[in-house]
Amino acid sequence: MERGPGSLARVATAIGATGGAIGSIDVIETGQTHAVRDVIVDCPGPDAAAGIVKALEALGNVKTLEVTDRTLELHKGGKLVTGLTAELKTRDDLSMAYTPGVARVCSAIAEDPSKAFEYTIKQNTVAVVSDGSAVLGLGDIGPAAAMPVMEGKAALFKAFGGVDAFPICLDTNDADAIVQIVKAIAPGFGGINLEDISSPRCFEIEERLVDELDIPVFHDDQHGTAIVVLAALMNACRLTGQRIEDLNATMVGAGAAGIAVAKILMDAGINGVIACDRGGAIHGDRDGLNPEKQWLAENTNPEGREGSLIEVLEGADLFIGLSGPGVIQAKDLARMNPDPFVFAMANPTPEVKPEDAAPYVRVLATGRSDYPNQINNVLAFPGIFRGALDVRAPKITEAMKMAAAAAIASVVSDAELREDYIIPSVFNAGVCPAVSRAVAEEAQREAVTRAGALAPQRA
Amino acid sequence: MERGPGSLARVATAIGATGGAIGSIDVIETGQTHAVRDVIVDCPGPDAAAGIVKALEALGNVKTLEVTDRTLELHKGGKLVTGLTAELKTRDDLSMAYTPGVARVCSAIAEDPSKAFEYTIKQNTVAVVSDGSAVLGLGDIGPAAAMPVMEGKAALFKAFGGVDAFPICLDTNDADAIVQIVKAIAPGFGGINLEDISSPRCFEIEERLVDELDIPVFHDDQHGTAIVVLAALMNACRLTGQRIEDLNATMVGAGAAGIAVAKILMDAGINGVIACDRGGAIHGDRDGLNPEKQWLAENTNPEGREGSLIEVLEGADLFIGLSGPGVIQAKDLARMNPDPFVFAMANPTPEVKPEDAAPYVRVLATGRSDYPNQINNVLAFPGIFRGALDVRAPKITEAMKMAAAAAIASVVSDAELREDYIIPSVFNAGVCPAVSRAVAEEAQREAVTRAGALAPQRA
Repeated sequence: MERGPGSLARVATAIGATGGAIGSIDVIETGQTHAVRDVIVDCPGPDAAAGIVKALEALGNVKTLEVTDRTLELHKGGKLVTGLTAELKTRDDLSMAYTPGVARVCSAIAEDPSKAFEYTIKQNTVAVVSDGSAVLGLGDIGPAAAMPVMEGKAALFKAFGGVDAFPICLDTNDADAIVQIVKAIAPGFGGINLEDISSPRCFEIEERLVDELDIPVFHDDQHGTAIVVLAALMNACRLTGQRIEDLNATMVGAGAAGIAVAKILMDAGINGVIACDRGGAIHGDRDGLNPEKQWLAENTNPEGREGSLIEVLEGADLFIGLSGPGVIQAKDLARMNPDPFVFAMANPTPEVKPEDAAPYVRVLATGRSDYPNQINNVLAFPGIFRGALDVRAPKITEAMKMAAAAAIASVVSDAELREDYIIPSVFNAGVCPAVSRAVAEEAQREAVTRAGALAPQRA
Repeated sequence: MERGPGSLARVATAIGATGGAIGSIDVIETGQTHAVRDVIVDCPGPDAAAGIVKALEALGNVKTLEVTDRTLELHKGGKLVTGLTAELKTRDDLSMAYTPGVARVCSAIAEDPSKAFEYTIKQNTVAVVSDGSAVLGLGDIGPAAAMPVMEGKAALFKAFGGVDAFPICLDTNDADAIVQIVKAIAPGFGGINLEDISSPRCFEIEERLVDELDIPVFHDDQHGTAIVVLAALMNACRLTGQRIEDLNATMVGAGAAGIAVAKILMDAGINGVIACDRGGAIHGDRDGLNPEKQWLAENTNPEGREGSLIEVLEGADLFIGLSGPGVIQAKDLARMNPDPFVFAMANPTPEVKPEDAAPYVRVLATGRSDYPNQINNVLAFPGIFRGALDVRAPKITEAMKMAAAAAIASVVSDAELREDYIIPSVFNAGVCPAVSRAVAEEAQREAVTRAGALAPQRA
């Protein structure tokens, strides 16, 4: 761009006018009349970059030398690589890591299968399994297109929990086939994290795998969400002095996450849960419900309340949104009991705009990182698997999930606890150790560990 | 051990008497009367360590403070970890690597599936798939016990070819199930390396997967061995001035490797291949042959020679052993044509002892690293997959295999070529680049590459 007073300001103004937000600006080169600058811009949408370039070129004294997309760049070639724990540089290295030395290690496992945890990556490795049928907000995009998400999940496992995870995206939507395949690949893994598998197949797949495998199987979309919701609720109650079991909850969204949240809320003692779908409150007199909604009809809504979501907000202390934008208006929240908790978790656009909801609520949480109180699964799954792997737990019990929720909540101290800080940041380094320790200790208390299991590794 | 003249010599003598070979000796601590030393000993067998400790204790003035097994230590916790290509330390990192940024990457792949090679680990990742049914010399030890080998193989892929490989050990021996599972997990991989799957299922599994998948599928036990055998033969002929097509070959061992070796020898122009199994020469009049041996009966041994292995050694220029120790005596080699080539590859004990065979042969090769001319698959598979991945080849053709063999042979220069140096060392840094370039160029020549494929990355 041309050097001179106001030159950068004009560039910034032009970018701002398109809705772009300028991040860092680095000077690459400065000449007599011109400067080369590297400007990072957060675009308001995926197609905005072209408009910004056009607006800049229109200034006349600015030339765009190169346009790169940081996000696409970051994903180029994938986000995971294989690391080796031992060098393979000499004949001696080879003869120990591979033939003939490896034969002795194989024989040791063949004689005592539990040694697989000692001498293979099973000790610390989780499969992130998806069929790509319910990916983020994108839906059924298939296994190849789901890979960037599963690689990202595997990266989060490593970065936050020290767990080696590997993405396995399956080219089938058949529940029987998925169960059979996951069982077949299980020998090399210490845990299975199911991800983005659409409802209702996800319930059957998880249930069968939990029954038939001797390693933890965890559908994060269900239980990860449920655990973090419960953690948020624990701290909201801690703030207000209420008891969880005295609350009434109205939730909207009866998919995988909704069912799991309803279950964990009931496990935590809430009797008055009313779940809603597009047809309003789910109750015992409704017809044509799928098995999961039928379960909700039989186990929630004890008063059998009927009506729309808005109607059954009446008398609720807690609203849980796991659906989509616009299902309620902020003013509808006035129907709730005084000082309610509102967890509006639809992503990227919450059920109700946080700014609009604020006047009506005591505690507000969303799924977004740009508002306070982000309900983010990354608070749960790395620590849960870390703890389960540390004690070689064959499964993750309900009590282990409850312990994880309490551990997440505990990271926020009494002094820190406020309406806009009931949930720790995903970057709070205390979260994973607290969760893993709580999960491992609960597993030991329940004796859900293996003979020869390690003591929890993290203090 | 007690300090003093001859003290260490007595220790060394005691270890030597048990058959142990001393490697390095480090002084850990020296006191007035005693020294603490760390002695690394190569044991003659898996149970020898206890005997060595006993012999040392019997000396009276030596105490063993700690005994560790280097090989088992190296395998503790497994040999692979997950590495991340991008940091996940800020909200900005997370929003690009995971939600919401990743959605754009997923959508790009959903719209154009070939972008999976650009934006996911598929670009550089190979599955090492086994059912643990034919592991090394151990046989059918199952998937869990096979993991150390498959992890080792994955480590070799990375160390020698820069290929990210991940072990998938399957808890099923059913060929249909294995085909179905490998097809289902294929979306995330750029290639499939089948390993240690027993014959004859390995043939059907590989053939079906090659037909049904659009990424390379390669059964290394077959083709890796065949390629390195051919490379060795090319250089043996280069040394003696013979032409491959003029040779007669007698081989023993009609398993997976044997069939593949017979095929590649015929592809290379050898008409007179006679394959033997325990029943002697395989020919058209034998009954009860499995489909693969039936294929050999129909396609090899053009003169229909009958008789034992020893009998059909008569007139052979090349002996290939892929069976077990003791199937021939050194003096039997005298029946072969003058100055024969003997590739005795049974592991760990060759078909004939190299020292005994030496007087009868011109060129001798084995599968062992402690004799010259080691026929080792690691010369082939890293470069083959490197080259195939570099051009996104959907398969590995016969011509690509031949090119790989020629490339391995070419690494030994005319000046270096000798009877005891027809095959480069596995640590020769020139091998993988030569093989990958040859494979990629052959793929391009045959147009077995993908639109948008990269040019070979390695010069």
